[in-house]
Amino acid sequence: MSGRTYADDLFPLKTDHPDEHMSVSTTSTPSSPNSVDAANSRIHVGWMTTPMDVVEDLDRNVAPYCTKLGEFKYNFVVFPVGGVVRAYWKPVEGNEKHPPVIDLPDVQLGNNLWESYVTGKISPWIDCDSPDTDFAALSEEHLIKELNYICYLGLQSMTIELKRISSPKTAAIMNKWLWTKNSRFIVWVQLPSSVEICADYDYFSSSNVDLWTIWADFRKQCNNFSGVYLQVVLTISADLPDEFMEEKLVNRWKAEPLAAFVVETSAFGTARSGEAALPNSHISLLKYLWTSDSLRLVLRATTDTHKYNIQIKSEYSLALRQAVRDVHYKRQQELDEGSNDSSHSLNVGEYKDVLQAPLQPLSENLDSGVYNTFEQDKMKYDVYEAAVVGALKDLGADGRKTCVVYLLGGGRGPIGTKILRAEKEYNTTFRQGKDPLKVKLYIVEKNTNAIVTLKFMNSRSWKRRVTIVESDMRSLPGIARDRGFEQPDIIVSELLGSFGDNELSPECLDGVTDFLKPTTISIPQKYTSYVKPIMSSHIHQTIKAQSIPYLSRALPCHGRGEPELEEDGSWVQKFPQGNVVSNMDQIYVVYLSKYIPLAESTKPVFSFEHPNFLKKSNERSEIIEFVMDRNADLMGFGGYFDLQLYKTVMLSIEPSTQTAGMLSWFPAVIPLRDQLRVAEGDTIRLKIDRKIDEGGVWYEWRVELKKPNGEITSTPLQNSNGESYYMRM
Amino acid sequence: MSGRTYADDLFPLKTDHPDEHMSVSTTSTPSSPNSVDAANSRIHVGWMTTPMDVVEDLDRNVAPYCTKLGEFKYNFVVFPVGGVVRAYWKPVEGNEKHPPVIDLPDVQLGNNLWESYVTGKISPWIDCDSPDTDFAALSEEHLIKELNYICYLGLQSMTIELKRISSPKTAAIMNKWLWTKNSRFIVWVQLPSSVEICADYDYFSSSNVDLWTIWADFRKQCNNFSGVYLQVVLTISADLPDEFMEEKLVNRWKAEPLAAFVVETSAFGTARSGEAALPNSHISLLKYLWTSDSLRLVLRATTDTHKYNIQIKSEYSLALRQAVRDVHYKRQQELDEGSNDSSHSLNVGEYKDVLQAPLQPLSENLDSGVYNTFEQDKMKYDVYEAAVVGALKDLGADGRKTCVVYLLGGGRGPIGTKILRAEKEYNTTFRQGKDPLKVKLYIVEKNTNAIVTLKFMNSRSWKRRVTIVESDMRSLPGIARDRGFEQPDIIVSELLGSFGDNELSPECLDGVTDFLKPTTISIPQKYTSYVKPIMSSHIHQTIKAQSIPYLSRALPCHGRGEPELEEDGSWVQKFPQGNVVSNMDQIYVVYLSKYIPLAESTKPVFSFEHPNFLKKSNERSEIIEFVMDRNADLMGFGGYFDLQLYKTVMLSIEPSTQTAGMLSWFPAVIPLRDQLRVAEGDTIRLKIDRKIDEGGVWYEWRVELKKPNGEITSTPLQNSNGESYYMRM
Repeated sequence: MSGRTYADDLFPLKTDHPDEHMSVSTTSTPSSPNSVDAANSRIHVGWMTTPMDVVEDLDRNVAPYCTKLGEFKYNFVVFPVGGVVRAYWKPVEGNEKHPPVIDLPDVQLGNNLWESYVTGKISPWIDCDSPDTDFAALSEEHLIKELNYICYLGLQSMTIELKRISSPKTAAIMNKWLWTKNSRFIVWVQLPSSVEICADYDYFSSSNVDLWTIWADFRKQCNNFSGVYLQVVLTISADLPDEFMEEKLVNRWKAEPLAAFVVETSAFGTARSGEAALPNSHISLLKYLWTSDSLRLVLRATTDTHKYNIQIKSEYSLALRQAVRDVHYKRQQELDEGSNDSSHSLNVGEYKDVLQAPLQPLSENLDSGVYNTFEQDKMKYDVYEAAVVGALKDLGADGRKTCVVYLLGGGRGPIGTKILRAEKEYNTTFRQGKDPLKVKLYIVEKNTNAIVTLKFMNSRSWKRRVTIVESDMRSLPGIARDRGFEQPDIIVSELLGSFGDNELSPECLDGVTDFLKPTTISIPQKYTSYVKPIMSSHIHQTIKAQSIPYLSRALPCHGRGEPELEEDGSWVQKFPQGNVVSNMDQIYVVYLSKYIPLAESTKPVFSFEHPNFLKKSNERSEIIEFVMDRNADLMGFGGYFDLQLYKTVMLSIEPSTQTAGMLSWFPAVIPLRDQLRVAEGDTIRLKIDRKIDEGGVWYEWRVELKKPNGEITSTPLQNSNGESYYMRM
Repeated sequence: MSGRTYADDLFPLKTDHPDEHMSVSTTSTPSSPNSVDAANSRIHVGWMTTPMDVVEDLDRNVAPYCTKLGEFKYNFVVFPVGGVVRAYWKPVEGNEKHPPVIDLPDVQLGNNLWESYVTGKISPWIDCDSPDTDFAALSEEHLIKELNYICYLGLQSMTIELKRISSPKTAAIMNKWLWTKNSRFIVWVQLPSSVEICADYDYFSSSNVDLWTIWADFRKQCNNFSGVYLQVVLTISADLPDEFMEEKLVNRWKAEPLAAFVVETSAFGTARSGEAALPNSHISLLKYLWTSDSLRLVLRATTDTHKYNIQIKSEYSLALRQAVRDVHYKRQQELDEGSNDSSHSLNVGEYKDVLQAPLQPLSENLDSGVYNTFEQDKMKYDVYEAAVVGALKDLGADGRKTCVVYLLGGGRGPIGTKILRAEKEYNTTFRQGKDPLKVKLYIVEKNTNAIVTLKFMNSRSWKRRVTIVESDMRSLPGIARDRGFEQPDIIVSELLGSFGDNELSPECLDGVTDFLKPTTISIPQKYTSYVKPIMSSHIHQTIKAQSIPYLSRALPCHGRGEPELEEDGSWVQKFPQGNVVSNMDQIYVVYLSKYIPLAESTKPVFSFEHPNFLKKSNERSEIIEFVMDRNADLMGFGGYFDLQLYKTVMLSIEPSTQTAGMLSWFPAVIPLRDQLRVAEGDTIRLKIDRKIDEGGVWYEWRVELKKPNGEITSTPLQNSNGESYYMRM
């Protein structure tokens, strides 16, 4: 579509075309990312129009105004959507309360320029939460008019400034707008620079309020609408409130859809060079929260200095760019260096915050590509080899000649190869090549497709040394009896998921117990799952917003249900619990990025030891408690596990003991249905059960919130009876 | 992800890496698109493995086999997914019916090579529709095994060859698989080369069957699953059946998801040069159906000539590439030239087969960008100007000094500008500058946002000559009385949709009737909608498969319902009629591409004339009849309209009278809920009503199918009571 309007033909703009002076607001890939020019194109700084820079008939001269701003290196402008005349109207007592009409003609700028250069600002006098009900009603009427006009102009973003701690009416209007309007733009909710300047601030009743709660309340009143469309903007003035200084408070913004910083000119001082400069504390704040170069910076003049000192406008934008220009670039460099580990070729970046359904290798056969991906994880297999060497060493101390090893769930056989290498290593190191110990290796695998590979491997690579058994391991005792297989000295398995037991390792391994000797060693010997409370609007929204395309409506899900054949011949999977509940009551695997932990360390959840000769039940019921150290929204829990393969040989994705260089498992996420508001001093208790019936295994969970005053509330029980997330046996 | 497997480390391929010889199967953008090299990279030719080229242990030597094929310029191979040993097993009487197991090891090729170079072929002996029920059951068991193995190998496509006219059991298995499996690949359904060779062919009972019905039945039994995943492959042998020779029959494949042609070597002759060459009839067929370079060609050897004459393999692939290599390129060139019309900058290509909801400018205000797009259509506005000049000429014949013109629904005013130009043109041409006629122009517009633009236009461009009235035109009589406006000599409006009256022009214009003089001229004077039956699996599936993402679940739709506020504070739009019915019972606007018309010409539906002084009802009820000339699936109707602005001044999107260079309206589509099978000689009757109540207007429709024997069936009534598609007043 052309950006030209028919007005272009009627009265071509006399000024230069803004295109020529304003750099286009798409991210470029600069060749020298550290240069000032590159930063200019990478970091987007905007100018917020205020009464300080209103000139005559500005509302009909937006094009030359933008051109001038472009000369001072501003990439966009935050401009009142109804025009400045209307925006700076003052509703005064006795006033007839007729604000000036919207009068910002569209045809003075091409549609593409409105889209890319202008963020529409709601008139600052609009206050739908005013205690003056007439004025609130007037405000509501005019807010809607301005929202409509934003659509008309085709703006891609708008900003509305909160002037109160509590803005439920404004939120209700925005909530309805966000959910029910076809024309979508990004809503920037601009917070005040401190709680104290809010119109409804009260020293006594506002004690537990901070800027974050103002935003989180607003977001919640908008039903946690997607952060793609509903974003928060922080206002930075000369004085920084405590919550912008203390890391555990300021880091909450990393778990929120932060769009931009509005920096007031009052925050600037003068550098030795004589130029406008930001204080170090301000620079630190910007750097700390500069998680991406797609964030925006906006300059707001609090005095009219810039009218007399024209140069200072450029100094402001330069100082802002300088504060953040290298942050993202350097972080990217570090990341690139970190991932240059040659042991794997997985680009983890593309998995950031992407929801993955945990594999269910017991009920669904893995495919070759999935095996191949896991097989890239050299570190994991090396550790398995070390564990087998350890066990051979202990068993072989009696001088035995053979050792019977069963690999249970062999996949395409990579651990099989490692077991044979372990034999060689053991013989070299501990028997000096004399009297070698011979491993007799059986590989049991239920995936009939993988059997083709195992047979091929056996002939090509293992010199036909391996006995390949096509069977579910739970049938092994019977098969072994029929075929006269020897009992194992060692069983080796790798049946773990991100949350430890969630690929049903306990059930699978228990199935072979009857076939073991009392001395049989299980590798692994033990595994434990861990949790940590986390905060993340983004992950919460992402889980909730999953929907099912028509062509996917019969794909098997993780609940108890099965696809059903409809009368018309199509298949469909039904969700009596509703799609949203089904989404929320699942365990996911996520490479977490836009989140923060709400506790220093994890706590253990479920442990399992093998062999389970006593046939202890694999059902579990645990309560895990955390004390909260700030106002926050609890989104759910990160889930992790560690794995004791043999004695001190461990694998772990638990953050404090994580195995370096291992990529096979991303964390699990155990979500709550809704984000749960917690305050400093609150105690949360995760009650989580592992339940079993004939067909499978499932978790049920809920959270109890205990206030310091003893009041207890509970979230609803999730995944009751495994309706939404059921691991089939 | 890396394409390497751990097998690469264990036994590196001794042959050259296939990568080096086989061009990668992504579309390149060649610099000289006519060159042979460019065609080699653009046109993908595959080799189908047959018993003619089985060598010893081929199933474990796929890599060198592919490399060899690459040398002969084949880009991919259609290979039996269970291996050739299994594929060419012959079930014989008395045989124990144990086919060889699947034995095509994955690790001999990297996962990415399986994905890009290998199309898996189902073993040809599998016949789930065999009348031998034991063998059918065995076939079913082994078909599932092979489908699973395709998933295991991670193949992106597979082919299954139909050997029967009717394959309901095979279709049922594929239907369940397509709907219910998480691993998705493209299913190629390969048709036999003629109806007569089908196992169940019978001269008497198969008289109304053709290859197209074999495919269409199979597709229907798979519930018309998306053509993205379920595609058809035509087999081209030496003899071409009639349906590949007659255009009205062969063009049906343009409305189907055609994936590839399997060309048998028996079809080749020898050119004068001595090289293998296709007959002209075959080349014509390929060219005619070569709608895109993403189609594939596959060579199937019917003799073992290629074993002794190695060169001929290259000749086959060259001949196939030559047949089609310039077709798409030339068509693209024509298209580019056609769209180099400087009067518009709309890239229609990006709208191909994209569903658009018709605008409802009466109930929803248009935005600046939409106005701007329409305003690009110079042709339309020029014709409006001509119509106004014509009316001024007739009215001005009496020498009058003024003429009162109302533009009803002015938008941003482009027709206003044209009316003022018409005045000038009239005075120059017909009054020679003396005694000029003065147009007194009123512009009525209900969109409060567009009023801002109109006022701006009035001061900047129209010298404040225009009286701008912010009002719905249906309130104009009252407003005009109150303010003493003059009655119009001419009313001008542009309120038409793709199906003529579907933007409620009749209702809007009737609203001003009381304010007109008996002599008032309406521009337009008349408009008529038209329909034509169409066939298109793609459009049918696209309409059906629309689903509603979570964040869009409260967006207003076109039905009677309104978004509702839920208890949790979110908004939601409910569809009691179900999402699929709601999708099918709507009118769409589509730039139709993958479709064919099933009638030579359109037929008229509804006509409206203005002014409607007699206040005739705007309700309508029509029956439009077409006789079918072939076996086909009726998907619905294309909708069009023409517009008599003034006397002979017309605008039209009806194909036979289409206004050249006008782009404001794409055709409408009136879908049926399901594709309706018709045969040559059948009569279809579209029964369509235009209904009105207090709140709006809607269409209801159904189709009656009358067989030559008099039997009549009817499709269900669609959009009853406007539940799914309701045009609000």
